[in-house]
Amino acid sequence: MPAPIRVTIWNEYVHEQQEPSVAELYPDGLHGALAKSLAAPDLEIRTATLQEPEHGLTQAVLDATDVLLWWGHAAHDKVDDAIVARVRQRVWDGMGLLVMHSGHMSKIFRELNGTSGKLHWREVGELERVWCIDPAHPIAAGVPEHFDIPYEEMYGEPFMIAGDAHVIFMSWFEGGEVFRSGFTLQRGFGRLFYFRPGHEAFPTFHHAEVLKVLANGIRWLRPAIDMPFPKTHRPDPLSPIAPKDFKVHNVGIVNP
Amino acid sequence: MPAPIRVTIWNEYVHEQQEPSVAELYPDGLHGALAKSLAAPDLEIRTATLQEPEHGLTQAVLDATDVLLWWGHAAHDKVDDAIVARVRQRVWDGMGLLVMHSGHMSKIFRELNGTSGKLHWREVGELERVWCIDPAHPIAAGVPEHFDIPYEEMYGEPFMIAGDAHVIFMSWFEGGEVFRSGFTLQRGFGRLFYFRPGHEAFPTFHHAEVLKVLANGIRWLRPAIDMPFPKTHRPDPLSPIAPKDFKVHNVGIVNP
Amino acid sequence: MPAPIRVTIWNEYVHEQQEPSVAELYPDGLHGALAKSLAAPDLEIRTATLQEPEHGLTQAVLDATDVLLWWGHAAHDKVDDAIVARVRQRVWDGMGLLVMHSGHMSKIFRELNGTSGKLHWREVGELERVWCIDPAHPIAAGVPEHFDIPYEEMYGEPFMIAGDAHVIFMSWFEGGEVFRSGFTLQRGFGRLFYFRPGHEAFPTFHHAEVLKVLANGIRWLRPAIDMPFPKTHRPDPLSPIAPKDFKVHNVGIVNP
Amino acid sequence: MPAPIRVTIWNEYVHEQQEPSVAELYPDGLHGALAKSLAAPDLEIRTATLQEPEHGLTQAVLDATDVLLWWGHAAHDKVDDAIVARVRQRVWDGMGLLVMHSGHMSKIFRELNGTSGKLHWREVGELERVWCIDPAHPIAAGVPEHFDIPYEEMYGEPFMIAGDAHVIFMSWFEGGEVFRSGFTLQRGFGRLFYFRPGHEAFPTFHHAEVLKVLANGIRWLRPAIDMPFPKTHRPDPLSPIAPKDFKVHNVGIVNP
Repeated sequence: MPAPIRVTIWNEYVHEQQEPSVAELYPDGLHGALAKSLAAPDLEIRTATLQEPEHGLTQAVLDATDVLLWWGHAAHDKVDDAIVARVRQRVWDGMGLLVMHSGHMSKIFRELNGTSGKLHWREVGELERVWCIDPAHPIAAGVPEHFDIPYEEMYGEPFMIAGDAHVIFMSWFEGGEVFRSGFTLQRGFGRLFYFRPGHEAFPTFHHAEVLKVLANGIRWLRPAIDMPFPKTHRPDPLSPIAPKDFKVHNVGIVNP
Repeated sequence: MPAPIRVTIWNEYVHEQQEPSVAELYPDGLHGALAKSLAAPDLEIRTATLQEPEHGLTQAVLDATDVLLWWGHAAHDKVDDAIVARVRQRVWDGMGLLVMHSGHMSKIFRELNGTSGKLHWREVGELERVWCIDPAHPIAAGVPEHFDIPYEEMYGEPFMIAGDAHVIFMSWFEGGEVFRSGFTLQRGFGRLFYFRPGHEAFPTFHHAEVLKVLANGIRWLRPAIDMPFPKTHRPDPLSPIAPKDFKVHNVGIVNP
Repeated sequence: MPAPIRVTIWNEYVHEQQEPSVAELYPDGLHGALAKSLAAPDLEIRTATLQEPEHGLTQAVLDATDVLLWWGHAAHDKVDDAIVARVRQRVWDGMGLLVMHSGHMSKIFRELNGTSGKLHWREVGELERVWCIDPAHPIAAGVPEHFDIPYEEMYGEPFMIAGDAHVIFMSWFEGGEVFRSGFTLQRGFGRLFYFRPGHEAFPTFHHAEVLKVLANGIRWLRPAIDMPFPKTHRPDPLSPIAPKDFKVHNVGIVNP
Repeated sequence: MPAPIRVTIWNEYVHEQQEPSVAELYPDGLHGALAKSLAAPDLEIRTATLQEPEHGLTQAVLDATDVLLWWGHAAHDKVDDAIVARVRQRVWDGMGLLVMHSGHMSKIFRELNGTSGKLHWREVGELERVWCIDPAHPIAAGVPEHFDIPYEEMYGEPFMIAGDAHVIFMSWFEGGEVFRSGFTLQRGFGRLFYFRPGHEAFPTFHHAEVLKVLANGIRWLRPAIDMPFPKTHRPDPLSPIAPKDFKVHNVGIVNP
């Protein structure tokens, strides 16, 4: 039996402490709700929040994390740049990262995409229909061709993400927009999965299909390797190099 | 006749001022040599260096730049984060960016790739043979299937770049390594082109084919559009939204 | 002034001759309507149909075609395999190909994608809203962020296309589906652009934005180069090869 | 314990029967050598050859195949088109396909790429050094950063493959060329892995690292799902469609 996957669920944990309606939906915080719903024998789950020292993401915690889940919205710029750099380095070394919903504007999402993460949005609680466009992807295992979330925030295209986004889910919104709702990336040795649903004002994280996708995502994000990039300086050639005459005129000169 | 392309060549300008052998090859700096060699009626070229106020990359200069060339090596971390963020935003708005050689470790290259930019390297002045693997790309126009640079620094795979890198050139090194030497990316509305050759200790920027590739690159990087991302909040739906009953039980509950 | 782009509009021309309602919308055939609407000084347009000898796509016609438009639906399997192979070879050599609507099940579309081209569909004449997700692409020049087609056939995901499809347009359908409606591919030296709208039973090809997209597509598909793949056998090495001792034991043997 | 992976190794089996030097290296044929070397408890391996009825690839055999290996060279055009179509359909439904070496010119490889598969080649028995450029990919598990094959046929760029080729291995050839030697694609629900080494005149299929890569490839190609594309006609909308007034003038008319 393989070792359990070490999962850390990170939540900025702001709305739940400020808005009673959110607290009612998620009395233990979004992170608490997710930790409870995603619990499984092959997972070793812990949580971390913005308010903890080093946001709960010390080097030791990250080193012992195989897959990091990220939920943030109101406090993206309160996340310390040094912690973001630390998370990014862990992804480059192999750690999986699952960014949810409004995390599209988090520093870590933007830095790994290399884009602004921008999109259009509307918050009126409309129907979102999620379509699976790559049913053969492991993250789609057991997920139906489409499922409905009765009320959600709208995110609309254009969505500023990297060109190598492998899109697994696309959303149709009642109000007339479309969106690439679930996609994967690889950065360095690590993988990223972004999944759109999950607005704090709605019970989305109690939705069976949404939880199924997140559960699949965690398994798929498990690192294949976990190591730093190997030594970069290779002073000795592997094959013989002929003697050279380092003269400028040996190059096809344009401007002598 | 279309307006000229406004080009800014940025150079950290360190080696030329510290090492006589480099100064001999590039007495006016790498930026000066490139400005001279790339001069053409359809280009309006200026230069900027690290040592100038705001590294010569004020908001006004960037706003008046269609395509920015970037050469850096010894002083990547002397480049101010705020200037890097400014350049990145300009790329997202449409500006083209041409990163050369050791710029693979520059902040701007890494932030737009979302990767570490790492690779293997060796500096013994060996033969580099550049292969064109996409002869139909505009950047390859007039470039032969392969050309040799008699002595260059070696860069070897694995090269940590984004998965959507569209590779145009691949290099063979005499000492036994291979490398993805020329590739494009799109980030936001802007394009990036990376081209590997260009070590300061060799006369690479006097090489006719190298200059040809750079000249093609500049034309291809010209912005198609140049604008900020449009307003993101769209409060009114485009299609009618049915009345909703916002009750938790309307969602398929897993953990009630 | 560059030479005009030589455009051939190919239409299977079946519905227009069999269904009066279609003939009413397109009295000169879909090809005739398109030829008229797309006419421009920089284009040299001819048409061809299934019923002509060699479907109007002789080697001479194809050799004199820079960009081929393709509309087919009811008669995909009446298209001769040899002609399809001829078109495919021309694309590999540089010719642009613009496949419209139901052409997603044409032999040429499937062979260039390497996929089945399958999708979901419904023909009730519902609203299609086309979203532009890459406004910086030349094919999107002058096209608004979204535009509506009041009644169209529905095509829904999953859409079986190649993974390197660069998506420019995505559609929202009134009945609840989403679709990747406009995308590009490169195959060999040639480019492909697929654009979904264009059902024969509706006046879609009289729609200003649809015509704008097609017009942009033609310009973007113009070949960068037009040539066969170069000679494949290269008997002489470019760099010296050391003498070899061709003995089996020189390879790390697993099964002796 | 999961069910074993059902593997079919297909070989055209021509060289071994015609050239004594090849028969000496592979007395049981390339397929026999591979079946022996790749044998493992989690694999159920059978072989098939061109000369058998239906090339040994009846519908029943393919339906009972999870992963198909393909080696062909001298007899690509002797492979029946109907069998190729059958294999292609199985890939679209989920079956994995591992194409080796000269299979780059097989019908099935070209049809799944949508390209000509062309490349440059030279057969003098030179050193090939295989570089792993994505060490985090499961196919690279346990494979060193580079390994040498002392004598092989050369394949050189440009290599005409699909743009979504995810490159895992790149080769350096002693004679001066580079090549994308190992890459994956997805087509429909199935995966493809191409691996370059494997010339019949050399003992490459006795090489430990080559066999390691093939072994990894088989495991990675195991189908995630195995099913036909679902029913395509969806006559009933999922969301309500407003009544329509099908009048031509409802569309923004360009040519009335």
